[in-house]
Amino acid sequence: MTQPLVISIDAMGGDHGPPVVIPALVRALASLPEDVRFLLHGDEAVLTAALAKHRDAARRVEIRHAERVIAMDEKPAQALRRGKGTSMWAAVEAIREGQATAAVSAGNTGALVAISKLILRMTGDLERPALVTSIPTPRGPTTLLDAGANIDCDAERLVEFAIMGEAYHRAAHGLSKPTVGLLNVGSEEMKGHEEVREANRILREGKIDLDYRGFVEGDDITHGAVDVVVTDGFTGNVALKAMEGAAGFMIAELRSAFASGVFASLGYMLARPALLKFRERLSPTPAAPLLGLNGIVVKCHGGASDRDFAMAIRLAADLARSDFSAEIERNMRRLPDALAEPAPAPTIEALPTETPASGGSEGAAQGASE
Amino acid sequence: MTQPLVISIDAMGGDHGPPVVIPALVRALASLPEDVRFLLHGDEAVLTAALAKHRDAARRVEIRHAERVIAMDEKPAQALRRGKGTSMWAAVEAIREGQATAAVSAGNTGALVAISKLILRMTGDLERPALVTSIPTPRGPTTLLDAGANIDCDAERLVEFAIMGEAYHRAAHGLSKPTVGLLNVGSEEMKGHEEVREANRILREGKIDLDYRGFVEGDDITHGAVDVVVTDGFTGNVALKAMEGAAGFMIAELRSAFASGVFASLGYMLARPALLKFRERLSPTPAAPLLGLNGIVVKCHGGASDRDFAMAIRLAADLARSDFSAEIERNMRRLPDALAEPAPAPTIEALPTETPASGGSEGAAQGASE
Repeated sequence: MTQPLVISIDAMGGDHGPPVVIPALVRALASLPEDVRFLLHGDEAVLTAALAKHRDAARRVEIRHAERVIAMDEKPAQALRRGKGTSMWAAVEAIREGQATAAVSAGNTGALVAISKLILRMTGDLERPALVTSIPTPRGPTTLLDAGANIDCDAERLVEFAIMGEAYHRAAHGLSKPTVGLLNVGSEEMKGHEEVREANRILREGKIDLDYRGFVEGDDITHGAVDVVVTDGFTGNVALKAMEGAAGFMIAELRSAFASGVFASLGYMLARPALLKFRERLSPTPAAPLLGLNGIVVKCHGGASDRDFAMAIRLAADLARSDFSAEIERNMRRLPDALAEPAPAPTIEALPTETPASGGSEGAAQGASE
Repeated sequence: MTQPLVISIDAMGGDHGPPVVIPALVRALASLPEDVRFLLHGDEAVLTAALAKHRDAARRVEIRHAERVIAMDEKPAQALRRGKGTSMWAAVEAIREGQATAAVSAGNTGALVAISKLILRMTGDLERPALVTSIPTPRGPTTLLDAGANIDCDAERLVEFAIMGEAYHRAAHGLSKPTVGLLNVGSEEMKGHEEVREANRILREGKIDLDYRGFVEGDDITHGAVDVVVTDGFTGNVALKAMEGAAGFMIAELRSAFASGVFASLGYMLARPALLKFRERLSPTPAAPLLGLNGIVVKCHGGASDRDFAMAIRLAADLARSDFSAEIERNMRRLPDALAEPAPAPTIEALPTETPASGGSEGAAQGASE
């Protein structure tokens, strides 16, 4: 563990660039071991000037000049064509060249995904890196993936998500054995898409080393029923945005409820500090890795504050320090075997075609009516 | 409009049966025209006794004795085998026999779906009736379907949902031309599953008479971006439960935020009435029709109060009185034509395989990080 760790940073990415990245770096350094060092990619003059005030930090940083920056609204295809020589490109390339173990960027997501994939290549069968997100629950954060990158997923891809999500959750949250669930419309074996049922079968067989708990439903995400919720990118993206929408609606309603009279307004003023804490608890984490690459790339959101970007740096360091990549590789090697030998077809009596997928409909009816 | 309307009621269904159904009936009658009449299916002695106190209501009710009741935990297949002679079966059968225009039940959802499908048959190509749900938004209720009955949906089914959901929304909420959107991971034409893109193409062509607005995303459900949100039963069920889970989590967090100190507690006491109103606003409607049947069947949730069940009765009457069924039929007749003549393939430049489904990933990254 005394081997020096180098983190490669796209210092120009995001809505703010160096004015956020440099203070974030200083902040992150305070809680990182002495042997963590940084490659800072971007405008040399700007970065040198910004670091002049932070001598301690500057000692641990090497600036690599990059002429250009990828714009926040640049299309991925365009970013691929003209990306060479940008701070983002250089930040990722440092991993492939063995000069850094992890990269961090708050830049254009589509561009970062495309560039990372081109430079680092995917480990498994995925089309593109999976996006992971962290949802607050009463039992701690739940990891949800894929949050929108891989729209159509077969069983094998869902199992890959399970492997990567579990390793990520362990590295990010320090749990020794995170539990894993597959998102479905009911908890019984007969429910859901064929892909989901097949992935369930593979995970149940136990050839992949995971604490797999079976199917979970939409409301289990915020219940914290399992640590890692696995789903395809279409469903994951819809679920995530639906939850965000619901939370936003509730906050707006709450605000108008509190504005509905003198007593309510007074109540609001008294309760305000508690409410602010409450809101903060609901905000998802500002940084997440792109999963499935030969290398660690952490994406920080574009509007990140220095606190957010410091978190992204620490996450990159945590992932680089942990067995994250090795654990993914270990389980990925088990995947062909798990896929190759399907168990004999289950002898469960087929669902009569006259009947609905009862859990689906029951559950939905409850949804529709409770 | 002076033709008498008969509504057929499963008086034994739900967690409570007649003690809820009879008061609900009395309540509903107060706001329904004189010519609305009822068939009440269930235990004759019990129902006669319960109606004895309500002479005005009794005049408009005909009791039909049913020996048996379908249990709330009965499997759909079992309900089909031994359902004949139950109050639920008789309530639905009255529609097929032309004795009633609509049926209402608070009984076992899976059984009601299976029995309705067997007795009334489906109008289109769906496997089973679609479940519709109503979500509160700042702009009024949004109709979401399918909420969990049809797990795998091709483009044709999605278009059927659009037709049925739009007619339902008009009848239930009195809008002359509800807007319709298709749930996807981004708003651009190139995004999402093939099924979703194909349904989008069909709806865009305009052969189906709908005010179609294109793709919407998960958070648009609670924004009220469109009146009717169309999706497959898998995604719809997950989105619905995810929103419920998020709302439940927020309420729990809010409770603990308010319990975090003396001032917050005082604030809570002062704000409580406003908060209760707020919570009520978030509860979905307690009744919804099963869509896609040759006949109107309204499902009320099992734990319904008499107020809820009265709402279900009024909804059945609204649907029966409106052009709901005729409008669905009219658009369904346009469906073969809309499906048969695909437009020439769009000449949009193909998305390079190196790039992610940019909206999916962009959106998700926002989700992951905002």
